[in-house]
Amino acid sequence: VFSPSVYKAPGQQAFQLGQPAIDAFPHAIWHRLLSRRYRCSWQELFGYQDAFGYPPLRAAIAAYLGVARGVQCSPDQVIITAGSQQGLDLLARTLLQPDDAVWMEDPGYGGARWAFQRAGLRVVPVPLDHAGLDVSAAQNLAPDARLAFVTPSHQFPLGMTMSLERRLALLAWATDRQSWIVEDDCNSEYRYAGRPLPALQGLDTSGRVLYLGTFSNILFPALRLGYLVVPSALVDTLMTARRVVDLHAPALEQAVVADFIVQGHFVRHIRRMRTLYTHRQTVLRTAIGRYLPGILEVHPDPAGMHLVAWLPPQLAESEPIVQAAHAIGLELLPLSWFSVGPLRRQGLVLGYAAIDDDQIIEGVRTLSRVVERTLKDSRQNVLRDA
Amino acid sequence: VFSPSVYKAPGQQAFQLGQPAIDAFPHAIWHRLLSRRYRCSWQELFGYQDAFGYPPLRAAIAAYLGVARGVQCSPDQVIITAGSQQGLDLLARTLLQPDDAVWMEDPGYGGARWAFQRAGLRVVPVPLDHAGLDVSAAQNLAPDARLAFVTPSHQFPLGMTMSLERRLALLAWATDRQSWIVEDDCNSEYRYAGRPLPALQGLDTSGRVLYLGTFSNILFPALRLGYLVVPSALVDTLMTARRVVDLHAPALEQAVVADFIVQGHFVRHIRRMRTLYTHRQTVLRTAIGRYLPGILEVHPDPAGMHLVAWLPPQLAESEPIVQAAHAIGLELLPLSWFSVGPLRRQGLVLGYAAIDDDQIIEGVRTLSRVVERTLKDSRQNVLRDA
Repeated sequence: VFSPSVYKAPGQQAFQLGQPAIDAFPHAIWHRLLSRRYRCSWQELFGYQDAFGYPPLRAAIAAYLGVARGVQCSPDQVIITAGSQQGLDLLARTLLQPDDAVWMEDPGYGGARWAFQRAGLRVVPVPLDHAGLDVSAAQNLAPDARLAFVTPSHQFPLGMTMSLERRLALLAWATDRQSWIVEDDCNSEYRYAGRPLPALQGLDTSGRVLYLGTFSNILFPALRLGYLVVPSALVDTLMTARRVVDLHAPALEQAVVADFIVQGHFVRHIRRMRTLYTHRQTVLRTAIGRYLPGILEVHPDPAGMHLVAWLPPQLAESEPIVQAAHAIGLELLPLSWFSVGPLRRQGLVLGYAAIDDDQIIEGVRTLSRVVERTLKDSRQNVLRDA
Repeated sequence: VFSPSVYKAPGQQAFQLGQPAIDAFPHAIWHRLLSRRYRCSWQELFGYQDAFGYPPLRAAIAAYLGVARGVQCSPDQVIITAGSQQGLDLLARTLLQPDDAVWMEDPGYGGARWAFQRAGLRVVPVPLDHAGLDVSAAQNLAPDARLAFVTPSHQFPLGMTMSLERRLALLAWATDRQSWIVEDDCNSEYRYAGRPLPALQGLDTSGRVLYLGTFSNILFPALRLGYLVVPSALVDTLMTARRVVDLHAPALEQAVVADFIVQGHFVRHIRRMRTLYTHRQTVLRTAIGRYLPGILEVHPDPAGMHLVAWLPPQLAESEPIVQAAHAIGLELLPLSWFSVGPLRRQGLVLGYAAIDDDQIIEGVRTLSRVVERTLKDSRQNVLRDA
């Protein structure tokens, strides 16, 4: 059931993950930029293009990341990809050999795990604590790892920030071992409280960090554009690999994204979405407090587009709830879907960014009926077994 | 020099390969369809999509291929890809194991060879004759091959059509050995004389043929859309692989292509381009006859978007000409770039579809100066060596 096919359903259902509020997207502006670019630039944008992407978009991304995230790069280190998934697949195939060990946060991002497994790599799940990936534990588990996959600004899916001390330890390990760090920063823009720590990439003085970003969360998923910022030494290798995979990304939309960033719409849109998503997160927490009090436990998250709702400790499995929820049209994923090792406590991962207040509240009410029925069934099973 | 980077230069230079006439594209129609789809369908087309592509586009392709190419398939056998290159990469990674042998026409399509080599496959170059890939020779060279890559409707780059007898022999081999045939039919639409043989796929009763197509040649390359028609038994495997690679293709443009096909613009555009390209091929042959008489040998080709211009038999190498041509801005590829084994005679592969009469004639005049200088140098070298 919990295969990549969960990404299939289009539309805006409660509580689909990774879906932004496409109804709050500035469609009039985008449409205007798209039309103008088509009329003015088709001669430039219809033939074969640079494998690494449209140069003005690469420049716009480098400038944006420098200011917003403290990423240190020149435009020629920026590779435009078909979403962050292609970046992961590309680096997994190109930088490592089959059976190389990879440290993966556990629980962690499924898309990265698929890409690593598909490339024949040995995924080593590493435990997390309040400061993120436990680097000491990782070094004990697989000191010879060739790559570490981390989400330092907002751990996916649990949400902690990797401490500066931990970041420095990870960089020291990578430098010492000549291993790679993949910093997935896909959720960094949506931070609602405090100032985010700048990207790990900005601390890297040895060229060991590959920085991964996407426009799926900020613009829209079906755009299929993301980027990979790589050390200069990797540019040629990845350029050749990219050409073999699919030559290059579609050009017209790259130009539109470049205009959208350069003209300031991008930053304005992020600011508006921060306000909207802060509100939606509050609505979700309030609804859970009202309809599932003492049953689902949620905490405020200062960032992201989802919350982890913890199930009662006595529930050893989340699958019955998730399957019952799917059966009546709720799109949600169990925390166990993101983990390899056993979880100390089961949870549900609930996306809230794409849906309005009514959908959130209605979704929680539906979920409450599912959860209560499942809890009742599980109590009866316990009684019957006793 | 002759790396994938030849695809880098945008624009319409003489004699770039695989570039259609983007200035003759029906831009007003495309722009109107794009705008309308944006306005009417963004709610459907902005979120995550089906990994295999936009269903109406898959249906439109299946219907078109049935009528135009005799391809037997249902829409759910059609996978939308990022150009034909992604189709090649996807199947190379998914259907075979490293070190599996692959029959490849020699000379043959470079993009396929890269994809096979990158997947760790053993590429076995197979000689061609007037009827296409020599199936008996292939069986002697590597009877255990797991896949054969062929361009039956118009061999790339030499242009012969694979005979019916040869097609049946190839199918018998694949059925017997449970091997795969990849039919790259990317050049099939542009046939200027006679009726094309229908696709090999339509003769396949054992589910061994994967059929590869692209919109790069008919619409425009930077669209990055193509398709793969696969036997039903492979649908799930390739679907999962596609998701790991990049989830799915961008949605808005898929919808526009579907409208373009369903409303009849696609077939009308192909018809107009047939007339235009027939004319441009004649201009190219005439110019070569005038400016390089008795030096470059060209024959009429009833199909395609390029001609092979054969060099004088005494020229053992084409690289000096190609490098001198590149140095003064002519984009052309030597036939040797497409071949693994030695060529009996060297040639130049000249794309003519994208450039107008003046550019073709000017390009041939520039080429004539390059060729004559190189021939003179080579005669002097011969005299000096003697």
